[in-house]
Parts: sequence; C-alpha cells; structure tokens
Amino acid sequence: MSATIHRNGAEAETPSLDRLVALVAGDLNHVNAIILDRMQSKVALIPELAGHLIAGGGKRMRPMLTLASAALLDYPGTRHHKLAAAVEFIHTATLLHDDVVDGSGLRRGQRTANLIWGNPASVLVGDFLFSRSFELMVEDGSLRVLRILSNASAVIAEGEVDQLTTQRRIETSEEQVLAIITAKTAALFAAACRIAAVVAEQGDAAELALEAYGRNLGIAFQLADDAIDYSSDAAVMGKGTGDDFRDGKITLPVVLAFARGSEKDRAFWRAAMVEGKSGDADLARATDLLEQSGALEDTINRARTYGRRAIDALGMFSNGDAKVAMIDAARFATARAF
Amino acid sequence: MSATIHRNGAEAETPSLDRLVALVAGDLNHVNAIILDRMQSKVALIPELAGHLIAGGGKRMRPMLTLASAALLDYPGTRHHKLAAAVEFIHTATLLHDDVVDGSGLRRGQRTANLIWGNPASVLVGDFLFSRSFELMVEDGSLRVLRILSNASAVIAEGEVDQLTTQRRIETSEEQVLAIITAKTAALFAAACRIAAVVAEQGDAAELALEAYGRNLGIAFQLADDAIDYSSDAAVMGKGTGDDFRDGKITLPVVLAFARGSEKDRAFWRAAMVEGKSGDADLARATDLLEQSGALEDTINRARTYGRRAIDALGMFSNGDAKVAMIDAARFATARAF
Repeated sequence: MSATIHRNGAEAETPSLDRLVALVAGDLNHVNAIILDRMQSKVALIPELAGHLIAGGGKRMRPMLTLASAALLDYPGTRHHKLAAAVEFIHTATLLHDDVVDGSGLRRGQRTANLIWGNPASVLVGDFLFSRSFELMVEDGSLRVLRILSNASAVIAEGEVDQLTTQRRIETSEEQVLAIITAKTAALFAAACRIAAVVAEQGDAAELALEAYGRNLGIAFQLADDAIDYSSDAAVMGKGTGDDFRDGKITLPVVLAFARGSEKDRAFWRAAMVEGKSGDADLARATDLLEQSGALEDTINRARTYGRRAIDALGMFSNGDAKVAMIDAARFATARAF
Repeated sequence: MSATIHRNGAEAETPSLDRLVALVAGDLNHVNAIILDRMQSKVALIPELAGHLIAGGGKRMRPMLTLASAALLDYPGTRHHKLAAAVEFIHTATLLHDDVVDGSGLRRGQRTANLIWGNPASVLVGDFLFSRSFELMVEDGSLRVLRILSNASAVIAEGEVDQLTTQRRIETSEEQVLAIITAKTAALFAAACRIAAVVAEQGDAAELALEAYGRNLGIAFQLADDAIDYSSDAAVMGKGTGDDFRDGKITLPVVLAFARGSEKDRAFWRAAMVEGKSGDADLARATDLLEQSGALEDTINRARTYGRRAIDALGMFSNGDAKVAMIDAARFATARAF
C-alpha cells in the first residue's frame, strides 16, 4: 500500500497535523482565551483542577476541527470560538470522568487529576465543566447546536456505559467494538465538525458531510490509538504500551486476534483479558499473537478505510487550505500507527 | 411560637405535602411517564441503574414544584411536563454523583446505586441522565429555560466542590454553610419553580417571585434536614441518625454549637469533625451539646425564617388551591423537624 492514500490536493509527504495547526492558530488563541476565562470560579479548586488537564498538553483536536470546518466553509464570524470552547469543555469533562471510571493514574505522561485531587473532585469538576459548556452554547443561542451537542453527550455517556459492560468480555464482536468507538470518540468529533456548518448556515448537506468527516475521522483516530497501544513506539505517543492489555480493555486488535486464534491462543486471551493474567511476558506474547495473526495490521487497515471515508466526505467542498489541512489530519490519524 | 406561622389561606392543622401531592397528581403521572420513557437506552444497565434511584421512593419534590408553580399561574399547556422530567433527571444525576463523592451506601433506607453497580456505572449513568435532561430542554425549545437550568447545574457543581473543600473544616462559617446550601440544594428548587413562569409567559416579576419561593424553600428544607440528622426521630425520615456527624459534614447545627461552645466543647468538636472521633458515645455528646447550646433549635429557627420568606414571595399571586398547597409545602419543610 502506498503512503499516499489520497491525492485530493495533499502532497505525498509524511502526514502531520502541521497544516491544521497553522490554519487555525489565530482562532485557537481566541478559543484558549475563552476556555481560560470560563473555567474560572470563586471555588479555587475548580480552575486549579481543570487547568491541570486543560493546560496538560492536549492537542485541542476537537476545537481545531470546529475551527477548520468553519474555515472550510469560509465562515466570516466568531460564533465558532465560543462553541469550540464548549466542545473542549465536554471533552475535558468526559476525560475527568473517564480517569475516575478507569482508575487511571497517567494521561499523556502526566499524573491524572483523580490521582492528585481524588475521585470526588474529578467527578464534580467534570460536572461543572459540562454545565459550563451548556451555558456557553446557550449564550450562543442556537437550538440546533444545543441539540447536536446534547445528543452527542448522551451518546458518549451511553457508549461509556456500554464499554463498562463489555470490559473483560472476550466474546465482544467487531460490531460492538465499533459501536462503542462510534459513541465514545466519534460522536464528539462529528458534532465538533457539524456545528461549524450550523453557525455558517450552510444547510443540511454541508452539515451531514462535516458530520461524516468527523465521525469517520474519530473512528480512524481511535482504531489507530488502539493499535498503537500494542506497538513498541507507544511510549513516543505519551501512552504507556500495553495499558489496554493490563486493563482488560477489549479493543479491535484483540477481537481480531481472538477470532483468528487457535484454541490455545484463545485460552491465552481468556486468561489475559478475563482473568487479568497480564504480566510483561504475557504482554510480549499478546503482541506476538497480534502481529502473527495480522490483527494489528488489519486494525490499521480498517482505520485507514475510515480515514479515506473522512476524506471523501469532503468531496462537496471547494479546494483550498482548509480542505488540504483536513485531508492531512485524516491521513495523519492512521499514519501515526507506523 | 405558634404552630401556625402564616394564615395566608392555610389551615392551622399539621403541615404536610398532602395538598401539593393532590394538586399535581394528574400532571405528575404524565411526568413519570416521560421519565420512564426517556431513561430508556439500548444499553440495559442505564434504565436498570437509573430506575433503581428514580423508582426508589423519592418524593419528586422538584418536579412537583414545577407543576405547582404552573398551576399557580393557571398555565393551560403541557410543556411543563417535559421540563419537570428534565429537572428530575438533573436531580437524579447529582444524587448518583453525590453518592460516589460521599462514598454513601444508603439513601432513603435503600442501598445506593454505587454500592450495587459500582462507582464507574454511577458516574456514567449520571452523565447520561444529565445529557438526557438537556435533550428534553432542547426539544421544548426555550433558550430561557436552557439558560436557567444550565446555570443552576453549574452552580450546583460549584457548590458541591465548595462543600468538598470545607469537609472536616470546623472553622467553616455560617455564611459559607448557607452559600453551599444555596448552591447545592436551593438553586435547583429555584430553577424548578422559575421555569414554570417562563413556559406560562408571565414575565420577569413572576419569574423572580417563583425563583425566590423555590430558593427560600430549598434552604428551609436543607437546614431542617441538617437538624433532623441529629434528632432522635431521624430514622423515621429514612435517614440514619448521625450520618452527617460520622461523615464529618460541617452543617449549621455544628457551626453554631462550635461558635457557642467552651474551649472544652470546641476540642470535642475538633476531635469529632476533623479527626473523625465519632463513635456512638461521641454522637450522644454531640447531640447533647447541640441541644444545650440551642444550636439545633436555632437551626430550625433559621429554617423557619426562610420558609416564611418563601411564603411571602408568593404574595403577588392570587389565592387558590395552588397557592395554599405551596404555602403548606413551605410550612411542612420546617415542621418536619419536630
């Protein structure tokens, strides 16, 4: 397979987020100012805890997508700044709650908020940011945006509960894994892109196209992440290799390897994922099985297909810097996994 | 002090919620149907867990207030049904998160959801119900209602974080305690009443009057609850006597007793609330000190003042069944404490 998966205006260089970052840099300063302003509270613990995560090295991927989508539509206003901040608040709230749910201690190589301030504070500051995000949307005043983002939030929570019930269930199917990813990760990517079409008043077709771009991009990113978790370069991504393995998290690589495995392989996966037998030697064997069975490669292949679908969803929009940057982002999503 | 604290159409009998319950019974059936319908999800754990709490014997106090307020204004429509359900979802979400934050095992004499299904599920189903409540509001379509309830939600979360930082801090002042109660409890009571004036399109004065009724009523209820926690009749209320004491929760009775206490008394309170010395003998001594110092009685007196303010806030509305029922509710709030 060629490194260049699409020639729709993009160069054949190594994909990166550089163009996206450059495209939205000016707007992102405004968004960051709103984020900093609106996470304040007379209760000092709130900005302290929220600031730890918000300033903690996140890429601001979702707000960047709102900004890039607005640029794609030549939207001349500034309403998207507040809404991009609202999207980041929803994301931050779900991260805070996720870390409590998973009992995580590290995120992007930093100690998590729940480790530093405890679970109660993480739950409540998450609730605060979530409420604040709705206040921002109400200030903007678009019921359509409110509908899109309240629905996305419900879908995310539903996906999180669904994932909870599949934890350590080795019989989880590819369809179930994709449904969870679509809900947990892709729903907010989709909403982040779609709301730009609402404020730019570009009609249903543009909304649905951007929704499709975001959704497919989100799935591509998550599948690639799930593969990277078993790759030796994981440390580079600020993620501990084998975290998912040790947590018994059923991701697509494991589902594929289990489905393709011998009886003996399946017994291994059961012991590892269900019973939690996940020492270093077990992780090494898991990685071997994932490579031998082609599960890792095929997870990337699946991811790449979603990345292509994201790019094709942009077909209706005119060429230009924004489109090139968004195509690059979709190529980057899966290129990271090599 | 006479048992009858206000003669504004109410009888001099023992106050109860009977009139309020009778007034809204028909509407509440519609609200309950919406609640049952909208807590459904293809993820079975969500209605299972939510149903445990929603069906678990709550009085539906907040939705009843929305319904009663609408009746007070002779609102002829049905928009308030969906919004009352949204209010109950916000309340249920905060209860689920509260029990996680407090590590509670019992609520209204029943095992809490976090004890049965674990903290992760309680956090995530809370998030789901919270998102769902915003979906219900968006369906209704009033930005004004969305503003009122998103603001109330942010204030509630802020109050919860604030309370977290005062936990076991015996130097907490009466002003701080009231600020936390106003945020944690009274903000949603206030919003529940106020939104009825929005859907009934009765203007700012009616909105503010109902807001004041709800806020003062909420404070009265909470202060009375905090006193009841130290009363021997607490078991009757479905609450374990001394729960707050054992949790080191700084409530108004303790703040008053500490402020009025001798050096020896203060040392006792410090050992109990800060260091957690809270056995049965300690609870007995605490109750003695609360009674001797008049702290319990004066907490009720403060509560009764807020109850009266709630009643007086209704002054602008015409007399009738709804007003009598709402006055009864305000009298009931503090009469429970005897």
